[in-house]
Amino acid sequence: MTNRGVIETPAFMPVGTQGTVKAMTPEEIKETGAKIILSNTYHLYLRPGTKIIAHAGGLHRFMHWDLPILTDSGGFQVFSLNTLRKVSDEGVTFRSHIDGSTHFFTPEKAIQVQNILGSDIIMPLDHVVAYPSSLDETRDAMERTIRWAKRSKNYHQEWEKQALFGIVQGGIYPELRKICCSALTEMDFPGYALGGLSVGEPLELMNRILEVAVPLLPEEKPRYLMGVGSADALLEGVARGIDLFDCVLPTRIARNGSVMVPEGYLTLRNAEFADDMRPIDPECQCYSCRNYSRAYIRHLLKSNEILGLRLTTYHNLFFLANFMAEIRRAIREKTFDLFYNNFWARFKSKKQKEGNK
Amino acid sequence: MTNRGVIETPAFMPVGTQGTVKAMTPEEIKETGAKIILSNTYHLYLRPGTKIIAHAGGLHRFMHWDLPILTDSGGFQVFSLNTLRKVSDEGVTFRSHIDGSTHFFTPEKAIQVQNILGSDIIMPLDHVVAYPSSLDETRDAMERTIRWAKRSKNYHQEWEKQALFGIVQGGIYPELRKICCSALTEMDFPGYALGGLSVGEPLELMNRILEVAVPLLPEEKPRYLMGVGSADALLEGVARGIDLFDCVLPTRIARNGSVMVPEGYLTLRNAEFADDMRPIDPECQCYSCRNYSRAYIRHLLKSNEILGLRLTTYHNLFFLANFMAEIRRAIREKTFDLFYNNFWARFKSKKQKEGNK
Repeated sequence: MTNRGVIETPAFMPVGTQGTVKAMTPEEIKETGAKIILSNTYHLYLRPGTKIIAHAGGLHRFMHWDLPILTDSGGFQVFSLNTLRKVSDEGVTFRSHIDGSTHFFTPEKAIQVQNILGSDIIMPLDHVVAYPSSLDETRDAMERTIRWAKRSKNYHQEWEKQALFGIVQGGIYPELRKICCSALTEMDFPGYALGGLSVGEPLELMNRILEVAVPLLPEEKPRYLMGVGSADALLEGVARGIDLFDCVLPTRIARNGSVMVPEGYLTLRNAEFADDMRPIDPECQCYSCRNYSRAYIRHLLKSNEILGLRLTTYHNLFFLANFMAEIRRAIREKTFDLFYNNFWARFKSKKQKEGNK
Repeated sequence: MTNRGVIETPAFMPVGTQGTVKAMTPEEIKETGAKIILSNTYHLYLRPGTKIIAHAGGLHRFMHWDLPILTDSGGFQVFSLNTLRKVSDEGVTFRSHIDGSTHFFTPEKAIQVQNILGSDIIMPLDHVVAYPSSLDETRDAMERTIRWAKRSKNYHQEWEKQALFGIVQGGIYPELRKICCSALTEMDFPGYALGGLSVGEPLELMNRILEVAVPLLPEEKPRYLMGVGSADALLEGVARGIDLFDCVLPTRIARNGSVMVPEGYLTLRNAEFADDMRPIDPECQCYSCRNYSRAYIRHLLKSNEILGLRLTTYHNLFFLANFMAEIRRAIREKTFDLFYNNFWARFKSKKQKEGNK
């Protein structure tokens, strides 16, 4: 529940990194069934910058999206895109991936920027470590994340307008995750995110961390797994109590010509689809599947036509939104176990790689 | 008037080179006000090829467009994209710009391919010369174009389904244009195109050729000026009796960040628009102008976001369709002279370059 509408969970949030979900209009995003999107503070802070977005009246008006937006804090990007970062307890210095300019983010600054963006759910600056990282390194980052969460909470004012979640770090170490969950829940945030997962570790390892951490977070508050967006990982996340997900996976692989179907993925650029007049997924009711053949979409992709990316992106977002709607229905009707088993009976590619943020 | 609907003229046809108007869905094309599009036989013949389009049930079904389509013959592309072409009276040998493979087009073959595509208006193979070309060279090509038009007419069967137009060549030489008009009108085509213009010659020179040729073509049949798509050139064409136009200009410059306004063009990538919260054209009622600022679209373009190209393309097509609708209204209400003068009082950049096909 946000000021801009109720979000039924579990739900998947499409990612609009630079203030646009790549290749889509806001109207199309809504058509696919999404009720909330994620946007990236790091990217928007660097370009176009907060001054222009403030002048536009906030991110919603700037990008013509009137449903809820969740913004991340920039923590993930600062630590994953920047090799030249310098972190201290005060904050983190990083270089712009656009022009190499130097910037300094503190927990307070990350909140301040998100206050200007005006997103409905905001995230505190966190210290994310790569996979694999040592226990000591991971502990240090996790402890800093807790201290930064505290400062973020103290700094943030308008809780009615913007819900500030806590982010659980601790890498693949169950004991660290437990400590972090305990510290954050004591601070009493309106929601909790699990960060630092889906960063290269096996799906099984991620699932094990969920089994440790999720039960330590209050059930009545949203629990958000950051950076996960393949159907199999979403289902496993829901099975372990996750309510919210985001990932660039569906939109990124779409631009590469990969589309989601109940059996896994189709690579539409392959020659086998050249003369295939069936829709991407004969069971799908999306705009792409109602009107276009695999052969036509393949032709567009091979010819570098933008409409090709639009049709695959639309389909993948619709597919995931519909998948989450089916999961919610199964949960309501108490048939989730059946749904889960049916999914795995059909799904072929368990080891599909997760996309990065 | 075609089997797929009436086209009010004068009208501008957006170009869908590879079976898609770049960056747009068919629904969006219709929303902009276009009632007919052009597609390129040369490109579709090479990729995906006629076999796949035949299998799909023709171009309309393949690309999900149910209004009229005009296809060109491939003549312009063969002669402008191919340096290795070899032309004889029998036909023209050319190399694919995609894979270098060799192909042979005859007038009959160009009709046959367009019969398979199933477009509503088709064009005969013509011999196009570059600007500038000598009188002799231009005469030879013009005479060959007439011979090929005759063969095309003899070969084509289903005139009820597909209207075959004649194409007037003759470069910038009034006497050649006259000969060609006379020869083609004797053959009695259901419509006539003026080819080989807007290929680099000054707008004034093109207008002079129109003044010679158009009066020699029957007024009750459509007269189509190929390759023209800037507002100023459209207006001058209509003033000289032209009914149909096509050009990649509005869609091509859009992808470059250039948008059409009553005063001429805006280059949205320019820094002056970074903080400009006005729509592209405050008088425009299109989707882009109703919902987005110049600042946002500039941000998208600078960030290489596809939505940026979509919004500029949509605007330019809407702008031209609306411009043609205003021209038709002015003609109906007998205020065309006033409209013409008002346009030129406002339009700043008479010397804007035409795009190529």
